[in-house]
Amino acid sequence: MAETESGVERRSADIILRGGTVVTMNPTRDVLAPGAVVIQGRDIVAVDSVEAIDAAYEETSVIDCGGHIVMPGLVNAHTHLPMALLRGLADDLRLDVWLYGYILPVEREFVNPEFCFLGTQLACAEMLRGGVTCFADMYYHEEEVAWAAVQAGMRGICGETVMTLPTPNAASYEDALRYCADFVEHWQGHELIVAAPAPHSLYLSPPEILRETTELARQYDVPQLIHISETADEVDECLATTAMRPVRWLEEQGLFESRVLAAHCVHVNSEEIRLLAEYDVGVSHNPTSNLKLASGIAPVAEMLERGVRLGVGTDGSASNNDLDMFEEMRLAALLPKVVRHSPVVVPADEALAMATILGARALHMDHLIGSLEPGKRADIIVVGNNGLHSVPHYDTTGRNVYSQLVYTAKSADVRDVLVNGRMVVRDGHVLTVDAHALTAQAQELAARINRFFVAHERSVLDKLVAIGGLQQHETFEVQAKGVVPDRAAFERGLQSPQVRITSRSSRDQYDTYFMFADPNQGRLRYREDNVMDDAGVVHPIYNLTLTGPAREAEYANSVVLSRSRYTAPADRSLRFYREYFQPVEEHEIIKHRERYHIRYKGVDFAVNLDRIQQPPQEQLFAEVKSRTWSRADAVRKAELIAEIFEILGSQPEDMLRHEYVDLFIER
Amino acid sequence: MAETESGVERRSADIILRGGTVVTMNPTRDVLAPGAVVIQGRDIVAVDSVEAIDAAYEETSVIDCGGHIVMPGLVNAHTHLPMALLRGLADDLRLDVWLYGYILPVEREFVNPEFCFLGTQLACAEMLRGGVTCFADMYYHEEEVAWAAVQAGMRGICGETVMTLPTPNAASYEDALRYCADFVEHWQGHELIVAAPAPHSLYLSPPEILRETTELARQYDVPQLIHISETADEVDECLATTAMRPVRWLEEQGLFESRVLAAHCVHVNSEEIRLLAEYDVGVSHNPTSNLKLASGIAPVAEMLERGVRLGVGTDGSASNNDLDMFEEMRLAALLPKVVRHSPVVVPADEALAMATILGARALHMDHLIGSLEPGKRADIIVVGNNGLHSVPHYDTTGRNVYSQLVYTAKSADVRDVLVNGRMVVRDGHVLTVDAHALTAQAQELAARINRFFVAHERSVLDKLVAIGGLQQHETFEVQAKGVVPDRAAFERGLQSPQVRITSRSSRDQYDTYFMFADPNQGRLRYREDNVMDDAGVVHPIYNLTLTGPAREAEYANSVVLSRSRYTAPADRSLRFYREYFQPVEEHEIIKHRERYHIRYKGVDFAVNLDRIQQPPQEQLFAEVKSRTWSRADAVRKAELIAEIFEILGSQPEDMLRHEYVDLFIER
Repeated sequence: MAETESGVERRSADIILRGGTVVTMNPTRDVLAPGAVVIQGRDIVAVDSVEAIDAAYEETSVIDCGGHIVMPGLVNAHTHLPMALLRGLADDLRLDVWLYGYILPVEREFVNPEFCFLGTQLACAEMLRGGVTCFADMYYHEEEVAWAAVQAGMRGICGETVMTLPTPNAASYEDALRYCADFVEHWQGHELIVAAPAPHSLYLSPPEILRETTELARQYDVPQLIHISETADEVDECLATTAMRPVRWLEEQGLFESRVLAAHCVHVNSEEIRLLAEYDVGVSHNPTSNLKLASGIAPVAEMLERGVRLGVGTDGSASNNDLDMFEEMRLAALLPKVVRHSPVVVPADEALAMATILGARALHMDHLIGSLEPGKRADIIVVGNNGLHSVPHYDTTGRNVYSQLVYTAKSADVRDVLVNGRMVVRDGHVLTVDAHALTAQAQELAARINRFFVAHERSVLDKLVAIGGLQQHETFEVQAKGVVPDRAAFERGLQSPQVRITSRSSRDQYDTYFMFADPNQGRLRYREDNVMDDAGVVHPIYNLTLTGPAREAEYANSVVLSRSRYTAPADRSLRFYREYFQPVEEHEIIKHRERYHIRYKGVDFAVNLDRIQQPPQEQLFAEVKSRTWSRADAVRKAELIAEIFEILGSQPEDMLRHEYVDLFIER
Repeated sequence: MAETESGVERRSADIILRGGTVVTMNPTRDVLAPGAVVIQGRDIVAVDSVEAIDAAYEETSVIDCGGHIVMPGLVNAHTHLPMALLRGLADDLRLDVWLYGYILPVEREFVNPEFCFLGTQLACAEMLRGGVTCFADMYYHEEEVAWAAVQAGMRGICGETVMTLPTPNAASYEDALRYCADFVEHWQGHELIVAAPAPHSLYLSPPEILRETTELARQYDVPQLIHISETADEVDECLATTAMRPVRWLEEQGLFESRVLAAHCVHVNSEEIRLLAEYDVGVSHNPTSNLKLASGIAPVAEMLERGVRLGVGTDGSASNNDLDMFEEMRLAALLPKVVRHSPVVVPADEALAMATILGARALHMDHLIGSLEPGKRADIIVVGNNGLHSVPHYDTTGRNVYSQLVYTAKSADVRDVLVNGRMVVRDGHVLTVDAHALTAQAQELAARINRFFVAHERSVLDKLVAIGGLQQHETFEVQAKGVVPDRAAFERGLQSPQVRITSRSSRDQYDTYFMFADPNQGRLRYREDNVMDDAGVVHPIYNLTLTGPAREAEYANSVVLSRSRYTAPADRSLRFYREYFQPVEEHEIIKHRERYHIRYKGVDFAVNLDRIQQPPQEQLFAEVKSRTWSRADAVRKAELIAEIFEILGSQPEDMLRHEYVDLFIER
């Protein structure tokens, strides 16, 4: 305590942010111009006019905020911090191609504790520089995320992902749950970090996971984080399998018996919004990500009207591509206007609330942060307001300062940032990281990822391998093809005593060939094989076959040895493969095929009788083939194939040396 | 010329931008990494790899761009530069309230040559700082805009607005056309400025204006600038009056016989898009403004697919609220994805094209600017790429640098800017303006505007005056009101020999009263008066009446002297007035009124017989009133009114001292 001239004792403070416009975001939305904020230790102890603070406090550690705006730190309500390292890896792609074709392969190869620590360091530095003081993260190795955040001096909820798929730090969801329980236990009561379980979503985290994470969240009194209704597909699938919309279904699973923070909620209807409000579920609206991935525009205005705890988030840098909450805030104000055809919905002060106090409510942390009020933690930012893009300022409506912050201010305008009373950014410089070393490290890791990526981008085969699940074996076939001049002779041949039919089937085959600029890449065939069973029911089989660029050998009568390098069930759509492999040409062959498995001179052969429907062909074609494993075997089988063709009524001049796609498609 | 060690002569250059990633936006979209750009005078003379340029040019005036991106300057295809001074004046309001209630009154009061010069200086400084090198402006006093731009070293099209409304520099459209012709003539052949006519829009610039501006544009070979289909209302009105959609109607008017740059085109259908492409009409897509004013989302993807010359613009700072082309570019890439439900439409390279080469095409200037190609003007920017939000960088798809620029880079990342070969921004500092003096001047003018605004905001009367067109006269009326106990007696009274009915009419009146927090503001009545003529046809009349807070005097039998301070036709909607005046309470009275004009003892009176329908009243009411001009006259008329009530069968106890709204509305 010290005495003023008037004899009144003035209290000392650790830091006083003095002058400028203080935007409190307190319940009465007071704006003090000029105002001052007094910080003692980790806490805000006073928020008042400059005169009042000057009268009550000693002038120690005063930071002059004249001409600037002092406000609560921004709350990033949904992100995947380590993905900062994957910023710009691949963009403008469909969600599945982006995820399965690019992000997951890279994550499988590179995500480890070091990746998560470095990525979080970079992300925290970017966020602090841009005025974000608190985040809600969902990723893997969250122990590393937590440590990196603590080192950067940031506050956050670290949500460890729990799902059925193996993660970089858990081979099974049981492992993930164990990791998660230890993690949550370990960080209990930490000043900056809330460790939390994060069941990924209803489609990757089935009821048994949700029950366990809910129990864990309740036991340790922490929230759980989850993605809800990001895409229309998610809703459709949930309806198809459960006859309930996602929020209703999750309610049934008891998820909302714990505190929940739900990301996205793009496709929620009025009933679901009522449920979200009723159960105090926090929601993170992530406008840039939802636009960029074409997921949709969340019903922000309705969620606000119904009192949902609605925050704003950036999502991960791989889908945004930055962690700029000023951009998100602006979109949170702009998009609902065009959706509602009304420029008065979600005015600037409401958007700012979403990024501060409402965001804190979404994270269930509004008792600690989100506004400048005595007793709350000192998470405060000072935003410069004198740039060429910032002037002039008006005070005509009592709300101009909000529109200044939401429609005009930029992340680069942030000058100073305090988290938990600690100064972490000063004059635009992040004090808690070595920005130069950090960017260099990030760039170095990215160069490694880039090499990995370019290497497997170069080869269609590597791209096949990268999306996983492919059976990596090569098969060799000896085969011949020919015109069938006389169907009756063909049928008679099959009935001849030398030939024994072991089975037969009937099918329609839709083949799509992808051709690549480099012929050495071979060609990729996507086949939809509609096999008809005895009852006439069609059973579709989808497979993907990569054939080598050239035949291995050629024998008499156009019998060839071909190498089908890789073949595997195709569990994604043709559209996916098209966007992923980006062929330069694409061709379609549709045929009806009668397939006979025969035995001839003790050897198994497949005989196909094909009617080519697209491009339409007058003649019928036959194909005889057999698997082989050696050149000697291939030579012997080539002779047998020539004999079989003779039995089936085809002459040497009927034989064809090329594939249907080469014969019938003009290129 | 100088000799290299190898004896080959190397040419000299004024400036060489060397190193970094050179994004050319040339027809083959070459990216040189690392590359270099050589500038001689105003022109680009070479764009090549660093090795090639090092071999060919002397190392004079080399600017090291290592680690950065070198690219064409951004083209802001639609703006209203001087409105930079009105940034944040009022936001989150409906277009008409914002325009008629805030912007137009301020413009009427403050827009003069000095305003336009200062505003353009500020706008140019902000744009240059953010990497914009060329603009297309539409405002008033464009001579000042042009001079300020030249002084800042910027390139632009300056469009002088021509419309039927008086403008700050033209009392009539004939004056505007004269100014415009002189202006266009004066700036012919200028190195940086294209002076152009700018008919405002089809609703403010009728065919006679369009004919003249088209003739002017053709005569001087300049484009003309116009707003087209910004709102759905504009389209509906055009359809209602011309039976054609706007683009078709403008084609009919011959507008497209000159080169045209059309702003917005939010509501254009496929046929109109085809016309825009066919006539090489440039279009400026202004996403932030269209969202903020809830105008809609333009069909960007379809316009691009059909080959429209589609640029991106910020619109004015009063509706954006900044001139940040990085933000617009990002939205130009993001919004079409969600509109089309596809993340692959308008990829980053296409959005960057809209902000550079396609924007230049929209301005009909692509022979000069928009890409880095030898022979084009040196309008070039260097964008920093090593910020915490910028790293890491990938090169996995050949398009990563575009996504870096569109999804990640920010206006604050711009380091250096050249326009016409002149360095105007260096290391983030605008060299051509005194930023400090400029922001101070802007702030000073804003303070004056703020005072004006606050002064007239304080009073409902001033707000009435500010929206213009109100007849500013006060009227006094002496009047009395009473219950009509017996309708038959009332009718008989009117037929009595002392009374002469001079006219009568029948009407339904819908009155809405706005009440204000400060009772001294009086109350504002919006009346829809549905007068029925002899044929039974209804002629609605709308008027607005501001009544004083208290009656002036009261006489016997509840006859009062009231002051209707201001009354005027109401030419806007009730909704407009509600949002503009923001009453704290609003009440509705609906009544059917039989009105008789009578003469009694040589004096004219109006007698109204009212049936109050809302809130419903059992009894009938009569009102007798007369205009007055003096207290003595009022006293005499008060006596006459008491006599008339007696004749009409009302007793003193039937008299009412209050207005209907006070009698029948519970408050």
